[in-house]
Amino acid sequence: MRKANDTKRYIIEKVAPVFNMHGYAGTSMSQLTGAIGLTKGALYGNFKNKDEIALAALEYNISRISNQIADTVKPIKNTCDKLVAFAQFYQDAFDTVSQSGGCPILNAAVDSDNSELPLRDVVIRSLESWMNSISTIIKKGIKSGEIKAGVNPDAFATYFVSLIEGSIMLSKVTGSRIHLERNVSYLVGKINDELRE
Amino acid sequence: MRKANDTKRYIIEKVAPVFNMHGYAGTSMSQLTGAIGLTKGALYGNFKNKDEIALAALEYNISRISNQIADTVKPIKNTCDKLVAFAQFYQDAFDTVSQSGGCPILNAAVDSDNSELPLRDVVIRSLESWMNSISTIIKKGIKSGEIKAGVNPDAFATYFVSLIEGSIMLSKVTGSRIHLERNVSYLVGKINDELRE
Repeated sequence: MRKANDTKRYIIEKVAPVFNMHGYAGTSMSQLTGAIGLTKGALYGNFKNKDEIALAALEYNISRISNQIADTVKPIKNTCDKLVAFAQFYQDAFDTVSQSGGCPILNAAVDSDNSELPLRDVVIRSLESWMNSISTIIKKGIKSGEIKAGVNPDAFATYFVSLIEGSIMLSKVTGSRIHLERNVSYLVGKINDELRE
Repeated sequence: MRKANDTKRYIIEKVAPVFNMHGYAGTSMSQLTGAIGLTKGALYGNFKNKDEIALAALEYNISRISNQIADTVKPIKNTCDKLVAFAQFYQDAFDTVSQSGGCPILNAAVDSDNSELPLRDVVIRSLESWMNSISTIIKKGIKSGEIKAGVNPDAFATYFVSLIEGSIMLSKVTGSRIHLERNVSYLVGKINDELRE
């Protein structure tokens, strides 16, 4: 059992960047077997089909970034400082994320938004969890008096996620960090000027 | 010659929504022939290869939206009112754009940003043209005294495009217009409060 789980984990770690680079819907079986150095039979011995591998790869790619964000944001006490660190994370992580194919949520969203694939459910769940983590910080900040009472937590969460995802798309495709840097700097200014009590 | 151009145009009109729905890189030849009711031979009689058809389809999809924006924005005289109409266009057009597969620039950006395909060049050119049209309106507004002199035209153009594209992604994949509506309303407020002289 242990060995089977190790093999599954090995496969996911190897195929995760391939899916993020070539598309969760569009990666071919030969790109997968090429990446792991195993046969098609070995893949099907561990996963039901290609969709199941894509799903596991997407969840792995998203959880890697989520864990990094949690490590960055959690130790910070002040809720406004938390939001600033959350925004700056994307700028600091951009080169690494970009080299591994870009934001996995954005990539899988575009891949799956015209379908009813389980992939789309993972994207929606991840976006909701991302927005929820931002609105929760804001609600805590309003309660503790660190964030102005008039701020709408859900509207700000929508705004934060949209601006970051749009910036990543723009900077990734043009190959220029300037768009993400401009928007993160704008977002940080907004947190300090309009949210901070 | 006329007839050949008519056939090419017929093919592009038929395949354009198919590419936007299934991906500019990922659409299969059988999806294309199915959409136009012609054989593979008829396609290759008019285009060099699938990449050339994808490119023509992307340019067609983008120009359709650009023309609609020009029709909406051009007749408006005041530069701030132009920007407001520009932002509101995406909210008004969302259902139609969404039903035809989403924003073609966003879709092709995610499809092509890990490659050196000519597709990526079209995406970059289109994004630059979009940002340029926004910064040109702002520069004119600053010159005419309608927009505050301290506004940075390029930074605002980056901001506008990122927020709209991120919002379209979020609303499209979740199936909820609320995200786009919140951000367009926020953008319009910003134009009126911070840009308008």
